[in-house]
Amino acid sequence: MDIQFNHFPYPIYIAEQSFPSLIDRLSRQIGKKFLLTDQHVAQLYSEQLEKLQSIEQVYVHTLPAGEESKSLSAYQEVLTKMAVLDFTRSDCFIAWGGGVIGDLGGFIASTYLRGIPFIQVPTTLLAMVDSAIGGKTGLNFATYKNQIGSFYQPQWVHIDPAYLKTLDHRQINNGLAEVIKYGILCDPNLFEQIKVSKDQLDYFSIIRRSLEIKHHYVSQDPYDQGQRQFLNLGHTFGHAIEAVSHHQIHHGEAVAIGLSWIAQASYQLGWTHTDLKPLLESVYQQHGLSHDFVGDSFDLLNAMTHDKKSLGQKIHLIIPIEIGHCIREAIPTSELMSWIQAGRGK
Amino acid sequence: MDIQFNHFPYPIYIAEQSFPSLIDRLSRQIGKKFLLTDQHVAQLYSEQLEKLQSIEQVYVHTLPAGEESKSLSAYQEVLTKMAVLDFTRSDCFIAWGGGVIGDLGGFIASTYLRGIPFIQVPTTLLAMVDSAIGGKTGLNFATYKNQIGSFYQPQWVHIDPAYLKTLDHRQINNGLAEVIKYGILCDPNLFEQIKVSKDQLDYFSIIRRSLEIKHHYVSQDPYDQGQRQFLNLGHTFGHAIEAVSHHQIHHGEAVAIGLSWIAQASYQLGWTHTDLKPLLESVYQQHGLSHDFVGDSFDLLNAMTHDKKSLGQKIHLIIPIEIGHCIREAIPTSELMSWIQAGRGK
Repeated sequence: MDIQFNHFPYPIYIAEQSFPSLIDRLSRQIGKKFLLTDQHVAQLYSEQLEKLQSIEQVYVHTLPAGEESKSLSAYQEVLTKMAVLDFTRSDCFIAWGGGVIGDLGGFIASTYLRGIPFIQVPTTLLAMVDSAIGGKTGLNFATYKNQIGSFYQPQWVHIDPAYLKTLDHRQINNGLAEVIKYGILCDPNLFEQIKVSKDQLDYFSIIRRSLEIKHHYVSQDPYDQGQRQFLNLGHTFGHAIEAVSHHQIHHGEAVAIGLSWIAQASYQLGWTHTDLKPLLESVYQQHGLSHDFVGDSFDLLNAMTHDKKSLGQKIHLIIPIEIGHCIREAIPTSELMSWIQAGRGK
Repeated sequence: MDIQFNHFPYPIYIAEQSFPSLIDRLSRQIGKKFLLTDQHVAQLYSEQLEKLQSIEQVYVHTLPAGEESKSLSAYQEVLTKMAVLDFTRSDCFIAWGGGVIGDLGGFIASTYLRGIPFIQVPTTLLAMVDSAIGGKTGLNFATYKNQIGSFYQPQWVHIDPAYLKTLDHRQINNGLAEVIKYGILCDPNLFEQIKVSKDQLDYFSIIRRSLEIKHHYVSQDPYDQGQRQFLNLGHTFGHAIEAVSHHQIHHGEAVAIGLSWIAQASYQLGWTHTDLKPLLESVYQQHGLSHDFVGDSFDLLNAMTHDKKSLGQKIHLIIPIEIGHCIREAIPTSELMSWIQAGRGK
């Protein structure tokens, strides 16, 4: 049976091996259904795809897997198909895939006829613990990630941890980095929970707790004006690392490095007396996450000031004090280089 | 001195010859300013443009005048420039023009970095009484109007009726049709007020009252799920007429015809005992608005069922009962042809 989170503004159904209830729920959804997925998911779950396609009034559109599909041209391709199929505001849009499909799908659903009902079915750990929840949608544009986007809440979300079985270690790490972030932000227990090997992780519990924490911040600040920025812990450095590596380093991997750097900088620059590095090291070692990135500090600085989180001449950094407690500070961009250097231990 | 509407969720400044206070207010706006306009406005108000350009950190972008600029390619063109200029979430976007610039500008402002502050400076009557207020943004796509869009409120709106002096009769009519709509919806006095020649119209008063009425509906239903649909009075036919005429008939002209048809159909089909046609005729004659459109009824029906207001198998029509009172009814699309024919008196 599905568990439904009651304190979310929309239902989040979460259960192991719950594909039959997904089919059931989609069959009861009124109107036409546009289902967006990628070739990777479509191939791995071809049997599920067949069953999904057999639901009445379902139209499936498959994009190439990967970040490249988060583009204005993919956006246009999908919108054209929806217009040809005469989708109206009473029809719905389903994103079945990882963060790319969810982010792109959310942007499409939020802007087609100024918004149609949107359903998220995340298939990666990163999407389950982070991107499918909170209402941020986005496209990459002009070399920047999420340069275009909107805030748009799904009508409901279906989470089945069974999808995690087909993820490789790198993809699991991509999501785990966000879980580590939630732990550092406000939950030492969650941080403890992931100090075991991947096959011993209690994904159901981790996902559930992660969503509660994310919701805690999002509900106070849906449009990312203040409190929600705590969720950017590790991301200011992380986004820059992703960009400078030309996305060879994936989001979660970059966030993990970013978390390590900001913890290190916080200690080195005297914001905390607690050296978090040894604590992070044990978790990183357990999962094969890296602390380090070989890249030019000036390139990183440059990428950081392009980042949308820069507000004029200051940038908001989320600074770890101890596991479970962070603070938010506006740091002049002129001081950012010292944070990068302290973070890298240079 | 500007009048500020206090019951709006954002300030609307309205005053005759208030360009100096616009300059003043924009000068005090923090961050960079991206000002979008069209060649027509830029040419007519070249002196104002010079003064606007002399404000610190203002970047002006001029698009060709006309509906063609409400396109995904114009959207992309502007976003590219904003990205190159490193616009951040603390910078702002100004739409200085009519409905096309306001609708496109609003969509850009709402989606660039998931939304940056947006300022509306409408220069046409239609934009002043309707499109600049209420938060609807839109682009045309795949032959449909506003097929892509969002709901996004401006930070503030500056209305200067002095801009109306450079509008021709056809452009004034474009806005007057919406004012007539507001009158039929809920204000017999407003309807009375426009029974004078164009040069005797009290624009300040008409604009103010129109905005109050629009706000009344929008505030109850910002995302257009029910109550706001009253504002579609005359628009279900109107949009179809626009589309079938390939936009040779402008929005307001089509709405005027749509108002006349729906009033006529309401009477013919027995929804009201009041024949509104003579009342409408006197106003239409005064301003040179037409009741009629020569076009195929099946083409109109086809265009109507493509319209986003169609919810599955029913369509919501706003039906006039008398001047100042309308009702909202879900009509099966199968009955729409009888409404078209009754409206056309056939």
